[in-house]
Amino acid sequence: MASSTEFRVAEAVAVLTRTPATLDALLRGMPNIWVRSNEGCSNEGNDTWSAFDIVGHLIVGERTDWMPRARIILEDGEARAFDPFDRFAQAQESQGKSLEQLLDDFGRLRKENLAALQTLNLQPEHLARRGRHPALGVVTLSELLATWAVHDLTHVHQLSRVMAHQYREACGPWSAYLGVLHCDGHSAP
Amino acid sequence: MASSTEFRVAEAVAVLTRTPATLDALLRGMPNIWVRSNEGCSNEGNDTWSAFDIVGHLIVGERTDWMPRARIILEDGEARAFDPFDRFAQAQESQGKSLEQLLDDFGRLRKENLAALQTLNLQPEHLARRGRHPALGVVTLSELLATWAVHDLTHVHQLSRVMAHQYREACGPWSAYLGVLHCDGHSAP
Repeated sequence: MASSTEFRVAEAVAVLTRTPATLDALLRGMPNIWVRSNEGCSNEGNDTWSAFDIVGHLIVGERTDWMPRARIILEDGEARAFDPFDRFAQAQESQGKSLEQLLDDFGRLRKENLAALQTLNLQPEHLARRGRHPALGVVTLSELLATWAVHDLTHVHQLSRVMAHQYREACGPWSAYLGVLHCDGHSAP
Repeated sequence: MASSTEFRVAEAVAVLTRTPATLDALLRGMPNIWVRSNEGCSNEGNDTWSAFDIVGHLIVGERTDWMPRARIILEDGEARAFDPFDRFAQAQESQGKSLEQLLDDFGRLRKENLAALQTLNLQPEHLARRGRHPALGVVTLSELLATWAVHDLTHVHQLSRVMAHQYREACGPWSAYLGVLHCDGHSAP
């Protein structure tokens, strides 16, 4: 873990900057089986997300979650709870769009948000500022930024699992050796 | 799942082609905390791999596992068991190299192997050919190719988990919501 909060911002940004290109490399131009399907994920329940849903969810986060919450912390502190995040808003966000359009939207929004974050010129005293999560209670700006980065990673983790499960049967006896096929989704992405 | 074996090869290749660029986008130029460390992964045991180890392991697979085994199936069938795969050979493979060098090596080897795969011009009857895994017993070429692709995904899955665990404490109460922080590694990557 980072010992300095200034270092922490740069580290989180290092992840946040790379996620759009990572998803682009993994998903753009992929056959539908890998990006539209969640079949075969019996571990995942009926509401499992496809790659298409996941990118849509990340877009909604860029629009309504991370930077808006950072601003609430800086402007209102604990006095105003965050607006709850709608984990299913991507159905509307993604309607009628191609995966390529979603990847473009995500890349553009993330770039805008990271530029806005830089403009805030955060100092250690800002990162200790507290806000109020509607369910989790008191959180800090530092925790919000770390969570933004890990939220990207949790969806890369989910994406690799949902994709891999399409080939669960295809791997034959090797499935015993492939950890991703034994991932149950942890009741969360 | 694909119903046609010809389609199956193209699907597997769609994943295999994209993995080097995916890892490149995710890892190149990253601060050391994200790519050299496996601290904080108490779920993962002491021999948890860092990003550096994982790319090294993928390189060893390109050199000694996938295409050599495909050739054994096509040339010797079940008569000759595969050579066992050394899951720890990357320590030697990676010694003295930078992560950027490993990413370059992986990209080059994968490209060569996919070119060699194309040269084989596999037909449905080839994909049903059987070989002998030293521990798992009889497997088919189709299963080998599917496993090659899912093996990439299992290491993307592992990578996102190992990286995320570096920020397990940093996320504060949000860690409850982040599935990747609750992944125990499934006793396998």
